[in-house]
Amino acid sequence: MFDTTTLMVLVSVAAGFLAALILGKIFVPMLRALKAGQSIREEGPKWHNSKSGTPTMGGIVFICASLLCALTGLPALLRTGDYSHLLVLGLALMFGLIGFYDDFIKVKKKRNLGLTGIQKLLLQIAAAAVFLIAMHFSGNLSYELRFPFVQEALCTVPVPVYLAVAVFIIVGCVNAVNITDGIDGLASGVTTPVMLFFTLVSMLANQAGLSTFPATLTGALAGFLFYNFYPAKTFMGDTGSLFLGGAVVGLAFALNMPLVLLFVGLIYIIETMSDILQVGYFKLTHGKRIFKMAPIHHHFEMCGWSEIKIWLVFVSVTVAMCVLAYFGVRIWF
Amino acid sequence: MFDTTTLMVLVSVAAGFLAALILGKIFVPMLRALKAGQSIREEGPKWHNSKSGTPTMGGIVFICASLLCALTGLPALLRTGDYSHLLVLGLALMFGLIGFYDDFIKVKKKRNLGLTGIQKLLLQIAAAAVFLIAMHFSGNLSYELRFPFVQEALCTVPVPVYLAVAVFIIVGCVNAVNITDGIDGLASGVTTPVMLFFTLVSMLANQAGLSTFPATLTGALAGFLFYNFYPAKTFMGDTGSLFLGGAVVGLAFALNMPLVLLFVGLIYIIETMSDILQVGYFKLTHGKRIFKMAPIHHHFEMCGWSEIKIWLVFVSVTVAMCVLAYFGVRIWF
Repeated sequence: MFDTTTLMVLVSVAAGFLAALILGKIFVPMLRALKAGQSIREEGPKWHNSKSGTPTMGGIVFICASLLCALTGLPALLRTGDYSHLLVLGLALMFGLIGFYDDFIKVKKKRNLGLTGIQKLLLQIAAAAVFLIAMHFSGNLSYELRFPFVQEALCTVPVPVYLAVAVFIIVGCVNAVNITDGIDGLASGVTTPVMLFFTLVSMLANQAGLSTFPATLTGALAGFLFYNFYPAKTFMGDTGSLFLGGAVVGLAFALNMPLVLLFVGLIYIIETMSDILQVGYFKLTHGKRIFKMAPIHHHFEMCGWSEIKIWLVFVSVTVAMCVLAYFGVRIWF
Repeated sequence: MFDTTTLMVLVSVAAGFLAALILGKIFVPMLRALKAGQSIREEGPKWHNSKSGTPTMGGIVFICASLLCALTGLPALLRTGDYSHLLVLGLALMFGLIGFYDDFIKVKKKRNLGLTGIQKLLLQIAAAAVFLIAMHFSGNLSYELRFPFVQEALCTVPVPVYLAVAVFIIVGCVNAVNITDGIDGLASGVTTPVMLFFTLVSMLANQAGLSTFPATLTGALAGFLFYNFYPAKTFMGDTGSLFLGGAVVGLAFALNMPLVLLFVGLIYIIETMSDILQVGYFKLTHGKRIFKMAPIHHHFEMCGWSEIKIWLVFVSVTVAMCVLAYFGVRIWF
């Protein structure tokens, strides 16, 4: 009746969803009691001051829920010996830990300062390197570069070049998701269709084991949105956004389609570019601005868009790009 | 580089989207000038009186846009001789015309009364019968009944029984979509993922020609939402909702999966059931109510949900059910 892959994916989504709902009920009041409210960044919009006190580190809700993929992926692991979902989960967890450490310092010191920029960067590079080495030696990386909608591989990249650029892409992507997390439910809302995309593509690629990780996370994020959607009862914190960034970029590499990030990660890219352009232009012109405020979601807020409108537009754009990307990659299988 | 089916689908979505955006710019001010504002139903919620004056019949925007599928589907029609997308378009257009006639009378008489219930019903049964006869004689109907997630056909239904029940399902589905159209953007928002679902399933079924109709309508509805989302600049009217109902149910029959409507059409079903239960219970108990107001979207409004929250929840449920249904039917191909 069911084929096993479909069954595993459905069980994963349901398990992630229910676990996130239940864990949210437990963790959100706990985080509030721990006074894990993030002091809102001083440079953020003034009207966000009312958000001060909302507990952060809520990301542990979907992190814990997504651990269930180790269980739901077990049948595939035993049958095929494919443990790539655990490698991607490992990458995401390393980043989640870096974020957690950062969040934790902020909460303890009651100031919006965690690790220094350079400390964060070094830890992130180390995490990326560990992941890539594990992927390389387990034979999970292909060095053929593919672009969606193009049937043939563009070229084969020399291994050292591929790995070096991959570190850059991983760290860049993780921080891009982190920047996207500036409006209630935005990072979780945008990443939900991206995870669904990776679930469907893993199934297309016949990587049943791998599919259980994005499937569990799809469910977990949908459940987490009950707590994170406007008005948010909890923020995911760096704990959550770095974990999600690791999950997104790890899956792109595990499926050997890093360039698909240009499609499904368009919002992350736009957010990051808006930040870079704003700062660059500001320095070049000694004080002029392109956007009313960066990253770009704050610009739209200052244009009078409600948080929900921004959420809807950004999530809709991501859904459209995911559908487009799905058409673009299905010709490979 | 592209396979032709993917290209046709992408061109269809883009054409529908752009056409709806452009036609909206033209039609919405025209409808406003024609004073095509629907007098809001007397039995609707009081707070909807402020909507009086919003032009109705906006459905012509996505109806006209979706006609483009006749063009984008032409290559497939010439290659395979498969004109099933035109049969479904025909069904939807017949229902759209019935709705238009009804809307038009309302606008002319400046009252919320169009055709009588029995007139509407007879016209709808006639439209359904014409469609089914055309489908039967063109060999597009299979009488094997399939249920999602079940590999084998449940049974083969005798032709007369199948056709009689099909008329009932078609008329029921069309009116269910009509009932769903009671909150800004709700019917269009719920039907967009359903159309995307039918697009992907047509591709899965290798019915490239058929896929161009739901693909064009997916784009057209996304474009229409720019005018129909809260706060709505136009309503689709019966013109639009009956057309959409015809499109949904026609595609389910053209793909020989009417039972998939239990999944992708869950919101339509819940809306209709809430209405039936409310009226039935009211009559049985001589005045008691199950819901604060029916159909159920008004109940949630009276519970204090914003129109946007109801929209989000109903659309999210539909997206989840479409994904589930996709898993359920992919085993057949």
